Amino acid sequence: MYIAMNRFKVAIGSEEIFEDIWKGRDSRLAELEGFISFHLLRGKTFPDEGYTLYASHTMWASEEAFLAWTKSEQFRDAHRNAGARKADYLGPPVFEGFNAVAGA
Amino acid sequence: MYIAMNRFKVAIGSEEIFEDIWKGRDSRLAELEGFISFHLLRGKTFPDEGYTLYASHTMWASEEAFLAWTKSEQFRDAHRNAGARKADYLGPPVFEGFNAVAGA
Repeated sequence: MYIAMNRFKVAIGSEEIFEDIWKGRDSRLAELEGFISFHLLRGKTFPDEGYTLYASHTMWASEEAFLAWTKSEQFRDAHRNAGARKADYLGPPVFEGFNAVAGA
Repeated sequence: MYIAMNRFKVAIGSEEIFEDIWKGRDSRLAELEGFISFHLLRGKTFPDEGYTLYASHTMWASEEAFLAWTKSEQFRDAHRNAGARKADYLGPPVFEGFNAVAGA
């Protein structure tokens, strides 16, 4: 099992628009072989640093399934049009990929 | 849905012992209400910084279910005895809790 996460530092005040952007996306992930689940996750708010941590969180049967998605038509479509509404960020998203080594 | 993660910077060379410690744990998580799944995740190795990123990753039905676990007998038992073998770390683990706000 493989988990792909993108970490976002969303400026305080932009949380609602950021969530709306994600809720409005038609990712077509379910069409992909090896796709297990997708969630948008909300973490802690850091008032002093001025942001709320979010992470996109996608579970795949394997890293290969994830990599195949990044080369797919569905991936291109999902990333083509972010829409007119923009959230404010503190820096670019940070990708982290994880392979499960134990558990159930 | 709630995801509890603990991020570990495991010193390069300590990966095998770190994984063995986790594989040998009897966490009894499955006894808890609201428990969905547990995985130990292996991330990237950062040769210049001298560590491999790991994360424990537990999915719960709700943050309340997670908090109930932290006050349980099962939690105390699981954290009582780390065993004789020790892995080397670069700093303490960093906890991050996430609430799902979208997805399926």
